[in-house]
Amino acid sequence: MKKKYLLAPGPTPVPAEVLMAMSQPIIHHRTAAYREIFSEVNEGLKYIFQTENEVLTFTSSGTGAMEGTIANLLSPGDKILVVRGGKFGERFGEIGEAYGVEVIPLDVEWGSPVEPADIARKLEEKGDIKAVFTTLCETSTGVANDIKGIGAVVKDHEAVLVVDAISGLGAMEFKPDDWKVDVTVAGSQKGLMIPPGLAFVSLSEKGWKLVGESKLPKYYLSFEKTRISLKKNDHPFTPAVSLVIALREAVKMIKEEGLENVWERHACLAEATRAGVTALGLELFASQAPANAVTAVKVPEGIDGTVLVKNMREKQGVTIAGGQAHLKGKIFRIAHLGYAGQFDVTLAMSALEMVLSELGYKVELGRGVAAAERILLESKG
Amino acid sequence: MKKKYLLAPGPTPVPAEVLMAMSQPIIHHRTAAYREIFSEVNEGLKYIFQTENEVLTFTSSGTGAMEGTIANLLSPGDKILVVRGGKFGERFGEIGEAYGVEVIPLDVEWGSPVEPADIARKLEEKGDIKAVFTTLCETSTGVANDIKGIGAVVKDHEAVLVVDAISGLGAMEFKPDDWKVDVTVAGSQKGLMIPPGLAFVSLSEKGWKLVGESKLPKYYLSFEKTRISLKKNDHPFTPAVSLVIALREAVKMIKEEGLENVWERHACLAEATRAGVTALGLELFASQAPANAVTAVKVPEGIDGTVLVKNMREKQGVTIAGGQAHLKGKIFRIAHLGYAGQFDVTLAMSALEMVLSELGYKVELGRGVAAAERILLESKG
Repeated sequence: MKKKYLLAPGPTPVPAEVLMAMSQPIIHHRTAAYREIFSEVNEGLKYIFQTENEVLTFTSSGTGAMEGTIANLLSPGDKILVVRGGKFGERFGEIGEAYGVEVIPLDVEWGSPVEPADIARKLEEKGDIKAVFTTLCETSTGVANDIKGIGAVVKDHEAVLVVDAISGLGAMEFKPDDWKVDVTVAGSQKGLMIPPGLAFVSLSEKGWKLVGESKLPKYYLSFEKTRISLKKNDHPFTPAVSLVIALREAVKMIKEEGLENVWERHACLAEATRAGVTALGLELFASQAPANAVTAVKVPEGIDGTVLVKNMREKQGVTIAGGQAHLKGKIFRIAHLGYAGQFDVTLAMSALEMVLSELGYKVELGRGVAAAERILLESKG
Repeated sequence: MKKKYLLAPGPTPVPAEVLMAMSQPIIHHRTAAYREIFSEVNEGLKYIFQTENEVLTFTSSGTGAMEGTIANLLSPGDKILVVRGGKFGERFGEIGEAYGVEVIPLDVEWGSPVEPADIARKLEEKGDIKAVFTTLCETSTGVANDIKGIGAVVKDHEAVLVVDAISGLGAMEFKPDDWKVDVTVAGSQKGLMIPPGLAFVSLSEKGWKLVGESKLPKYYLSFEKTRISLKKNDHPFTPAVSLVIALREAVKMIKEEGLENVWERHACLAEATRAGVTALGLELFASQAPANAVTAVKVPEGIDGTVLVKNMREKQGVTIAGGQAHLKGKIFRIAHLGYAGQFDVTLAMSALEMVLSELGYKVELGRGVAAAERILLESKG
């Protein structure tokens, strides 16, 4: 028996209470019993999204909802500005191209956040841009973008601001209504602590206006159909009932802790993780604006990053993530996301110290753990 | 405490073994452990689909996969022939129209199957039709279409044959390879006995050829991306991991019973249900070609169909389905689909007898149950 720990940036661990909720007998979705559950979920989602707007629920992974924002907001030939500073930012561009939208890229070095001023400049230069697509936490690089700053720049422009908050929601402060975010996308298997399979979108009035004008094809991911059904706490198509039931449990837990405490917990775990890896002589990949959902670390010289991640999983039972695309083998990523506590950070440091040591990297055992502990102790104060 | 019974045509009851599998700790999908599970699922799906072709898995409801067939097979302006004999047949037409495809309807009276000869005639008349869309079991009417006959008609034509087998798969004989079906669509919450949230598509070589020519936009539902990932028992986007794990359990159960026995069980339960309702003096809605997944029954004169369904659920704890669209209040539908046994049929008859009796319909208590029992006894022979 080897105990297993899941510290990847999604899927994230699911609390036992939530897993047990999923093992209840299935119920039909066109019943008062289901609508009551979904109504509770919908109220909870508005709280977690920090929005007065409705939150639409889709049975799909986060990418489905990302595609939904393209298909529901735009028309053929529309211009969009896409911040590309990681795999998920790039994905918006790929979807836009698949739909025949004119994608204007704003390339940012992977590992760095986008400068709101650069978005402002692009908006001025290009004119008639319909939407700006960016990411709260770019999961592939561990970078947090300044959404508040970006919102301040986009708000006076005709363009709507679309934010992929898939891995950021529930892990870091995010106030779309205050920050003038028009469209927020999220997924179930990150901060919301349930298995993958649900995705969410909420839209401002400015966002809905664009939906009214959109001419791209959509059906299953139709925001309009989903909004109409939502009024009766219903869905246009059969939802993943067991995941919605799981979400009710997870929402309860988040409400009990209080969203600001949830953010604070993530901030503390992230800081402890950063302190731990730094104390081991490792370098943060996203040192300028590290996210609180996941910490990306450069693989040190002479170490094979793929082997590091493999040994973490196979020898230590700790699943973390490697790098994606051109970062494969060059970074590793430790998540502290969702159902995560302080000893998830210390065990990650322990496992990392042992794996690095075995790979011949000079490491003082316990040093990373100690550095993390110091942060964790301070935060209790 | 009132025991509850789910006899609706999806979601269908989930066996306890499957529910318990879903309450296992979540695992990451980019691991050998997951790929082993998904590989087992994929083998099982090919068996249940009775196909040598790969079966693609999507995280969506069945409608997502239906949309996938339009978006992945067609190009703007393509002509398609859509058999419209119920709500789900009509849905293909709606999706086609949303995507700018020319939909040629073949309208069939709700409650009747389509005549293969009528499809042949339309194909001759119209020419250059790219695809024919029809339904194995039209869930909204309880009609079984003669897919074998339709396959024989379409096979020599340029058009591909797309079959919505969402509620029919695993409930009635279906041999897409032998019958020359090019594209089969299915869902998780019907004969596969797991909760909603997964959908499936398998394609013949002729189907894949059309995919290669298609110009309609797709990304999340891309068949090509999904096929490439499937080669490594992987997914292009995060799948609903817990549902895939559930599916492994359900697939095991179906294999253990043997697919032909599963079909035979459904045939027997369906026949018993038809005998039961007929013995109560009720009339089958789809008398000409009733499906083995769900039995649609006309609401007798003087009875409010909506109240009947409501009383079944609220007074008897038995969830059945009412009519959809213009059939609302005019029919009710009892499913015998997936995890269903003989006493699901007899309890449905019991509940129906009591509800009808209370609503003032002249019914001899026990008569429907007895008629069902006679069929069930015979089938043991």
